[in-house]
Amino acid sequence: MKRKTSPSKKNAPRTAATSSRAFKETWRPESQTPVYTIPYGPPTPKSIRDVLKRIHSYIDRHSPACLVDRRNGRKLTDLGKINSDADIAQGLFRLISYEWGVVYQGMMLASERTGDHRYRDYAARRLQFLADATPRFRACLPARPAGLNQPAFISIIHPHNLDDAGSLCAAMVKAHHAGLATGLAPLIDHFADHIANRQYRLPDGTFARHRPLKNSLWLDDLYMSVPALAQLYKLTGSAGYAEEAVNQLELFSRRMFNKGKCLYMHGWYEDCATHPEYHWGRANGWAMLSLVELLDVLPDDYPRRGIVLDLLRRQIAGVTACQGGRGFWHQLLDRNDSFLETSATAIFTYCMARAINRGWADALVYGPAAIAGWNAVASRVNAKGQVEGTCVGSAMAMDPVYYYHRPQSALAAHGYGPALLAGSELLPLVESGRVTAYDGAVQFGPMLEEN
Amino acid sequence: MKRKTSPSKKNAPRTAATSSRAFKETWRPESQTPVYTIPYGPPTPKSIRDVLKRIHSYIDRHSPACLVDRRNGRKLTDLGKINSDADIAQGLFRLISYEWGVVYQGMMLASERTGDHRYRDYAARRLQFLADATPRFRACLPARPAGLNQPAFISIIHPHNLDDAGSLCAAMVKAHHAGLATGLAPLIDHFADHIANRQYRLPDGTFARHRPLKNSLWLDDLYMSVPALAQLYKLTGSAGYAEEAVNQLELFSRRMFNKGKCLYMHGWYEDCATHPEYHWGRANGWAMLSLVELLDVLPDDYPRRGIVLDLLRRQIAGVTACQGGRGFWHQLLDRNDSFLETSATAIFTYCMARAINRGWADALVYGPAAIAGWNAVASRVNAKGQVEGTCVGSAMAMDPVYYYHRPQSALAAHGYGPALLAGSELLPLVESGRVTAYDGAVQFGPMLEEN
Amino acid sequence: MKRKTSPSKKNAPRTAATSSRAFKETWRPESQTPVYTIPYGPPTPKSIRDVLKRIHSYIDRHSPACLVDRRNGRKLTDLGKINSDADIAQGLFRLISYEWGVVYQGMMLASERTGDHRYRDYAARRLQFLADATPRFRACLPARPAGLNQPAFISIIHPHNLDDAGSLCAAMVKAHHAGLATGLAPLIDHFADHIANRQYRLPDGTFARHRPLKNSLWLDDLYMSVPALAQLYKLTGSAGYAEEAVNQLELFSRRMFNKGKCLYMHGWYEDCATHPEYHWGRANGWAMLSLVELLDVLPDDYPRRGIVLDLLRRQIAGVTACQGGRGFWHQLLDRNDSFLETSATAIFTYCMARAINRGWADALVYGPAAIAGWNAVASRVNAKGQVEGTCVGSAMAMDPVYYYHRPQSALAAHGYGPALLAGSELLPLVESGRVTAYDGAVQFGPMLEEN
Repeated sequence: MKRKTSPSKKNAPRTAATSSRAFKETWRPESQTPVYTIPYGPPTPKSIRDVLKRIHSYIDRHSPACLVDRRNGRKLTDLGKINSDADIAQGLFRLISYEWGVVYQGMMLASERTGDHRYRDYAARRLQFLADATPRFRACLPARPAGLNQPAFISIIHPHNLDDAGSLCAAMVKAHHAGLATGLAPLIDHFADHIANRQYRLPDGTFARHRPLKNSLWLDDLYMSVPALAQLYKLTGSAGYAEEAVNQLELFSRRMFNKGKCLYMHGWYEDCATHPEYHWGRANGWAMLSLVELLDVLPDDYPRRGIVLDLLRRQIAGVTACQGGRGFWHQLLDRNDSFLETSATAIFTYCMARAINRGWADALVYGPAAIAGWNAVASRVNAKGQVEGTCVGSAMAMDPVYYYHRPQSALAAHGYGPALLAGSELLPLVESGRVTAYDGAVQFGPMLEEN
Repeated sequence: MKRKTSPSKKNAPRTAATSSRAFKETWRPESQTPVYTIPYGPPTPKSIRDVLKRIHSYIDRHSPACLVDRRNGRKLTDLGKINSDADIAQGLFRLISYEWGVVYQGMMLASERTGDHRYRDYAARRLQFLADATPRFRACLPARPAGLNQPAFISIIHPHNLDDAGSLCAAMVKAHHAGLATGLAPLIDHFADHIANRQYRLPDGTFARHRPLKNSLWLDDLYMSVPALAQLYKLTGSAGYAEEAVNQLELFSRRMFNKGKCLYMHGWYEDCATHPEYHWGRANGWAMLSLVELLDVLPDDYPRRGIVLDLLRRQIAGVTACQGGRGFWHQLLDRNDSFLETSATAIFTYCMARAINRGWADALVYGPAAIAGWNAVASRVNAKGQVEGTCVGSAMAMDPVYYYHRPQSALAAHGYGPALLAGSELLPLVESGRVTAYDGAVQFGPMLEEN
Repeated sequence: MKRKTSPSKKNAPRTAATSSRAFKETWRPESQTPVYTIPYGPPTPKSIRDVLKRIHSYIDRHSPACLVDRRNGRKLTDLGKINSDADIAQGLFRLISYEWGVVYQGMMLASERTGDHRYRDYAARRLQFLADATPRFRACLPARPAGLNQPAFISIIHPHNLDDAGSLCAAMVKAHHAGLATGLAPLIDHFADHIANRQYRLPDGTFARHRPLKNSLWLDDLYMSVPALAQLYKLTGSAGYAEEAVNQLELFSRRMFNKGKCLYMHGWYEDCATHPEYHWGRANGWAMLSLVELLDVLPDDYPRRGIVLDLLRRQIAGVTACQGGRGFWHQLLDRNDSFLETSATAIFTYCMARAINRGWADALVYGPAAIAGWNAVASRVNAKGQVEGTCVGSAMAMDPVYYYHRPQSALAAHGYGPALLAGSELLPLVESGRVTAYDGAVQFGPMLEEN
C-alpha cells in the first residue's frame, strides 16, 4: 500500500552500478533497503552503451575476416588464389552461421541506436568479405558437396537447410538496404531460392525436417525462414514472400502454440497426436523474434497483419508470466528449477522493447519486465565482453533431462546477437523519459497528482 | 494406503512443542517417524492463547497512546493544550494507519474468542484516545493540509485516500457496537464521507487511484473500502452501503480475478488490455478478508450474497492450491521460489477458519489447511511477541524482481492484526472437537468404524 | 539447432555406467560435454538385468516363506501342526500384502522378459506356501477375527478391505494361469467375493471407505480392485468383471481426475463440493497401473475400451508434463519442491513402457521419458539390491504439509514391485532397436537422411 511521501526520510535501495537512479521508497516505520540480487531500476544509457562496446570489442577480436590455406595455415590475402584448400581463419565464432546472422543484424541496429559506426563497420567488413569470396569459392568447389571437410563457404554455396539460409539472408538484405556491402545480391537470391523452392515441406507447405525423425517441426525453423521472407518481401515488394511468412507462422502456431500457457513447444512430430511440450526458452525466443521481424516490414493495412500481432501479444503475455525473480527466463520457460538462460532472456528483452517502441505492446505493463530482462542480460556480460550463461546449441528432445543438462557457455554464439539487439532497443526505451519509479517500483508513463 | 491399526506399535511423530497431540501412525514394517520441519497437527488452545498474549504484550509496549510536543519531546497530558505542534508519541507502530485498523479488530476478536479483556482494553484505550484528541487537532489544524510535517491526526481529519479511511472506519464501527469507546461517531461519519463521496473512481464507479499511473486499480483497495462499507451497512441499515460493497467486489473481480488460477492480480491499469498478473500474497489476503467481512454482515437472504460467497469459495480453492509444503504461502502465491510470507499466511488462515466456523467452507477439506497455516504463523511469532517474516509495505509493480526482493521485517505492521485474527478464529476450530487424526494426517469430522 | 555432423570431432557426454552408448553430439565451436547428474541415454539390456537380479537377491533373502511358533520363535515345518499361534517368520517384507502382490507380478514379468526362472521361482515358492497354509489357518482361526494379534493369514481368510484382496488376487490369477502354484482357486474365489460382494460402496456402486471420514474415495483403491477384476474377467470370461472394472475407472475419474492438469487427486469426500487436490505421485501411479492392467485383458473390440485407452493417454500426457529434470517424478506431481519419489517414478516408467510396447502410446514422444524414468529408478537401486527413496505408506490428507514430510525408506515395500515391472518392460523397449540418438538427445524411430 502506498503511503504519503516524507521526502526527508527516503531511502535509496542498494542497487548495482548500472542502475541509473537511486530508487526512492517512501518512508515507513519498518523501512529497510531492499537488497537486490540483480540490479534493479532502469539502466543509464551510458551503461547500455558500455555493454555494447564491450561485446563489440570481444567479438571483433575473435571473429577474423580473412582466409588461410588449410594445408599450412598461412594467411591468404589474394582472393584470386582461393582454391578448395582455402578456408576462413579460425576464430572463436563462425562468420557463416545463423547465429552470426543475428550478430550482423544486432551490429546494424547498434549503430542505428547509438550513432556509433563501429558496429556497422563490423558487419560491413565481414559481409563484404563473404560477398567477395563466395564467387571464388563457388568456382573451385564441386557442384555437389562431397565429404565433410569442406570450407565454411559450402553452406552459402550449397545451403543444406534453413539454418544455412534464413538468418544470413535476412542480415544480407538489411546490409544491402543500408549500403554496407556490395555484391550481396547473388547470395541473397541463392538463399531465397533455397527457402522458397528447395526446403523440405509437409504437404500443406509447412517447413519441416527429417531430423531427428520423419516430418519433424523445429520451432527454431521459424527464425530460420520468416525474417528472411520478411526482408525479401521488403526488398522485392513481392507479396508472395509476406504470404509465405504469415503462412509459416500460422502453420507452426496451430500445431505448436499452447493456447493455455501461451508458449510454444520446441519440437513436434507429424506422426504423433500429443507431445510432452518442452517449452525451451531460446526456441520461444526465435519464434517471438520472427513475429517481430515480420511486423517490422508488414504495412499497417496488410490483411493478415492482425493475426501476427495477436500471436505476438499472446506470446509476450505467456512469456512475461514466466519471467523469473531476477529478471531472467529459465532454460525451460515454465520450469523454475531449470537454469537461468541468457540468450532467451536477451531475445525476449529485445522483442518486448521493440514491441513497446513500435507501439505493439504496452509500455505500462511490459516496460518494467523489459528493464528487468536487460538488467539480467547485462549482468552476464563480463569485463571482457563475453556473454556468459548461454545454452549451447541444442537438439530437440522428448525428455526433460536433456534440456536441464545442456551446458552453458560464453562461447555459445547464440547469446551475442540477441544481447546486441536487446541493448540497442533498450536505449530508446530508457531515453524516452517514460521510465519513472513509484515507491521503489519501476513504472512507465506519466504520473498524475493522486486525487 | 491404510493399514489395520496395531495400537501397541504406534509411533508418535516428532512434532514441535505447540502440537497438541502425538499424532499416531499405524505400524508398518518400514515405519519411520516423519521429521516435520514445522509443527504438524492441531495446536492446543493453550498454545494459541500463548501466542496471542505474546503479540499483545509486544505491541502494547510499543504503541503508546499519548501525546508529545514535537518541539521538545515532552509528554502532553492535557488534551486542552493540543496545538499544531502536538503529535502522538513515537512507538514502533502507528496508531493511525490501516494496518492498525486491522490490529484493533484483531484485538476485539481475541477478547471475544478468549474471554480475556486485555485485548479489547488495548483497542478501547487507543480508540478512545483517538476519539478524544481528534476534535482538538481539528480545531488547531488548517482546513487543508499544507506541507508534509503534519501530525498523524491529519489523515483522520483530512483523509487523503482509502488507506486513510477504510480500515480504521471498520474498526471504529466495531468498537462503537462493542461499546469500547465513545465519541467515535463523528470520525466514522467523516471516513464514510470520504469513502462514499470523495474517493476517486472510474466512470463505472470502481475505486481507483492515479498512482502509480492514471486510473490504476490496487487490489488492496478492496480491503480499504469494503469492510468499512460492510460495517456502515450494519451500523446504519442503509442498503446503499451493502450495494456499494458488492459492486466494488464485482468491479474489481471482473478485471483482476484470474478465473483459471482463482487468484487475483495485484495491480491493474485501465489503459492496458493485458497485465503480467503478479499474484501478490498479501493483496490476495486483503481481497479475501474483504469477502469475509462483507459476508459477516450480509443477511442470508441478501440478493447478491451468492455472488460474494461464490467469489470467496473460488478464491479459497485457488489459494489453497498454492499453500506451500510447510503451511506458508509464498510472497507471489503461484511462485514457489519466492519467499514464505507471514502476513498473507495469517490472513488466509483467518479467512479459512472463519469461513469454516461460519459454514461457508467445508471443514473436511479446508480445516487441515487452516491448521497448517496457523502452525506456520505461530512459528513466526518469537518469544518477544514479534511477528517475523512479513513483507514490508509494497507498491504495485509490473515486474517480478520487485516482489521477489521486498524486505521482510518484524516491524512491518501488516503481520500483527492478521496474526491476532488467525489465532482468535482458530480457537473455536480446534475447540470444536472436530479435529481428528487418521494415520498421522489431520482430519476434520467424525470417524466411523470402517466397513 | 542442428548442425552438420563432423564425426571426427564428436564428443561423448559423461554419463554414468549404466548408459549403453556414448551419446555423440555434433561438433560446435562452444562444445562442452554435458555433465549429467543422472545417467542419460538408453540403458544396456545387461544393466537392466543386473538391477533386476540385485532386487531379486535382496528380497529373496528378506522375505522368507516359512512358519514359526510365535510363542517360542521356533520354525514350524509341518503344516499339519499349524495352530493359532503360528505365523509367518518375520522378514523385512510381508508376504501377504498388496505391495507384495505387486512384487509377485513383477517377478512373473521379469521371468517372461528375461527368460530367467529365478523370478518366477520366487513368486511360485511363496504363492504355493500361501495356498498350502491358508486352509490350515482357516481351520484353526475363529470365524470372525477377534483382537489384533492375529497371524498374517487373517487378511486372506477374512479380507477386511480392498487392500487385503485386490493386489494379491490379481497376482494369484496370473500365477494360476502361468501354472506357478496349485490350490490357489479357493483363495482367488474368496478375494473375488470380497471385491464383488462385500466391499463398501457408494449408492452408485463406487468402491468407498469410511476412512478417514464417511464416504471417502482413495485413488489407491483403483489398484486394489481393477487389476483383480481384470484378471477375474480373463479367468472366468464373465463380462460382469470387465464391466465393473470400467465402471470403477469411470466413477473415480469423473470425481477425481483433473481435466486441466490430467492428473488425479489422491483423496475425495462425498460430502464436499471442492477438494484441495493433492496429486500424490504413487496414487497416480496406482491409477495408471490399473488402466494398463485392464487394457492388457480387454479385447480390442470391447465396447468401452476406448474410454479406458483415452484415460490412459490423457494421464500419460499429464504425468509426462510433470517429469522432473533428472527423470524422477515428485512426491506431489505438480510441486517441484517436493521430494523425488522412487515408487511413483517406477510405476509411471513401467506403464509408459508397457503402453509403448503394446501400441497404446507413441514411442516417439514417450519413449525418451520412459528411458529417463528408468535411469532415475536404476540410480536408486543400490549395490545390495535395495530400492531407495520410496515414500512410506501414506494416508490421504487434506494439507500439503503431510505429503511433503512423508519419510522415504528402502524398507517401504511399495518400491520393489514397480521397480521389477519397470525394468522388465524396459527390456523389449531398449532391445527393439528403435532407440537412437540425435545430436545427443534420445530419440525413438528410424532416422532418415535429412533432405
